[in-house]
Amino acid sequence: MAHYNFAAGPSALPDAVLTAARQGLGDWDGNGQSVMEIPFTGEAFARIHDEAVAALRQLLAIPSDYRVLFLQGGAYGQFSLLPMNLLRGFESADYAVTGHWSQRAANEARRYCQVNIVADGATSGFTDILEWTEWSLDPAAAYCHITSNETANGVQYRQWPETGAVPLVADITSDFLMAPLNIRRFGLVYASAQKNAGIAGLTLVIIHQSLLGRALPITPTVFNYELLAAANSRVNTPPVWAVYLAGLMFKWILAEGGLEEMAVRNRRHARWLYQAIDQSGFYHCRVAGRARSSINVCFELPSAQLQQQFLVEAEARGLHNLKGHAAATGLRASLYNGVSEAAVSALLAFMHDFARCHASAV
Amino acid sequence: MAHYNFAAGPSALPDAVLTAARQGLGDWDGNGQSVMEIPFTGEAFARIHDEAVAALRQLLAIPSDYRVLFLQGGAYGQFSLLPMNLLRGFESADYAVTGHWSQRAANEARRYCQVNIVADGATSGFTDILEWTEWSLDPAAAYCHITSNETANGVQYRQWPETGAVPLVADITSDFLMAPLNIRRFGLVYASAQKNAGIAGLTLVIIHQSLLGRALPITPTVFNYELLAAANSRVNTPPVWAVYLAGLMFKWILAEGGLEEMAVRNRRHARWLYQAIDQSGFYHCRVAGRARSSINVCFELPSAQLQQQFLVEAEARGLHNLKGHAAATGLRASLYNGVSEAAVSALLAFMHDFARCHASAV
Repeated sequence: MAHYNFAAGPSALPDAVLTAARQGLGDWDGNGQSVMEIPFTGEAFARIHDEAVAALRQLLAIPSDYRVLFLQGGAYGQFSLLPMNLLRGFESADYAVTGHWSQRAANEARRYCQVNIVADGATSGFTDILEWTEWSLDPAAAYCHITSNETANGVQYRQWPETGAVPLVADITSDFLMAPLNIRRFGLVYASAQKNAGIAGLTLVIIHQSLLGRALPITPTVFNYELLAAANSRVNTPPVWAVYLAGLMFKWILAEGGLEEMAVRNRRHARWLYQAIDQSGFYHCRVAGRARSSINVCFELPSAQLQQQFLVEAEARGLHNLKGHAAATGLRASLYNGVSEAAVSALLAFMHDFARCHASAV
Repeated sequence: MAHYNFAAGPSALPDAVLTAARQGLGDWDGNGQSVMEIPFTGEAFARIHDEAVAALRQLLAIPSDYRVLFLQGGAYGQFSLLPMNLLRGFESADYAVTGHWSQRAANEARRYCQVNIVADGATSGFTDILEWTEWSLDPAAAYCHITSNETANGVQYRQWPETGAVPLVADITSDFLMAPLNIRRFGLVYASAQKNAGIAGLTLVIIHQSLLGRALPITPTVFNYELLAAANSRVNTPPVWAVYLAGLMFKWILAEGGLEEMAVRNRRHARWLYQAIDQSGFYHCRVAGRARSSINVCFELPSAQLQQQFLVEAEARGLHNLKGHAAATGLRASLYNGVSEAAVSALLAFMHDFARCHASAV
């Protein structure tokens, strides 16, 4: 039986990347060492690192005045480390709250500064994103933080807010590398790797060089953006294997046609799923059309009992990890780049069958 | 040609662990998913985590009033996160400086508190460790920090200082799991995984439960010991693959005979190497006998030119990564658990040959 993984992250890796990873476990350098064993100060790892950065720069067309940093600690770690690194000379920061993760980011930032909530999606139950023209932006803020896609609530920005001279910073963990992104619109973006950039244990930061040097004195050395930029992300031992996997993912995306192709595939998959939901008269998506996530498709069934039955039968059909986030009710299908068309087709066929069997029982 | 890796970390992994790791890359869970792809919130990862913790508890006979935490950021990250987590209600901490790494730990702690240097090995060029009975300990310190083994300088404690009511905390990164350790002597120990506990990207903290709840408000949530303990180290997505590798290493050590057996092997290897150095009249170790590291054997040759030649010829014989730390002059052979007796024998044979060829030229 074929198996398909719809997990929200760690998520499915393409077969080609897993095959390449297997080679990295063997005598990778011709000296009997696997990638997991090479010294991080040597030429072999420098090549792995530099190739990964170069592939990422090519994918996103990152301008030369932006730096690419590799860190540890996850995007949740950045909820603290980002304010620590950007607050010197400022007293406050703006946060748009559009779901579970941006809410946590704002809460964490309160340890370090005054937080202005410029938009609060809680009033809509996080089923929509308030137009940025209605946000209460503060021109004295150190930065304005958004979460480009909310994995738990299934909402996603369609256009970026205009924040004037205040740098726009974004947690792009869950839609990172799923479509082209105009980096120039941002002062900084960051992402955990375990969605579309490999495996858990690596965090990526892309930062405009003008924002380096704004760290508070309490910032730990190994997480200081300026020091990381100066040391090519090797202030201390980096997560060598995770950096290697990220490079494999970047090269795979390039070989598949780049971010334009990823966006075409993702939009097609998302369109199929939302159409199936909306036309079923059985499944239901609470999110407003203009804010629906193309990555994390959240939906509900008429009863909690049916949802449970759906999960059990899906598992039996090889469709895994369709349970929604603990902070939300319902189900969720995540459509990262490692999720194939065959996976989406199998899910659609199952959803059709399940609805036909159970719609009459409602 | 056989290849042997004497790197100071990331270091050599046992063949049995690499073989098991290969299985983890395949259809690991019977649902078509590799370990790198499974959700961290599911039962499969909970089992990986719990088995790793149980194996570690068995190896070190960790008492039940100590907690095992898995974090990210490396031991260098702990240089900041440790004071953040332990300083509430205190104004200062004691640090014994015995080499490159304890010096850095002390420097980093100065961001958060007053640092008392209770012993300064710089006066001896870090070739000895001052007897703890001569240290100037402060009974009001939040903790007393030591580095049990200094990888760059090749010095190692033979006995632990008595610090009274002040908790002794230790960076045990480089001698972690190389010999039995009486955890009761410590309030907290921490280690990067990339020496004897798998791969880079995982940090381990073993902490007495009485020290939980002393975090400063600036401590990031994902690095807060109390929150990590409450969440079984799953505050956010853990480095799944690195935790899996750590578990494989722990089980391998148990299968090989546990820490007593590791200590027997390591002491034998170290004795052979130091004897070869001392009896050669060619190689030289600057470290005092009572403080010599059994893990990182640092030695010098009569000239920088000979050292360079030694490295080139060693590489040609399949003996890799013998260059010393950038902060020290000379050469270094690291004898972690993944370094086999065959590796040590090959190194000894080469050192013998090299000395015979070049001793007369000095």
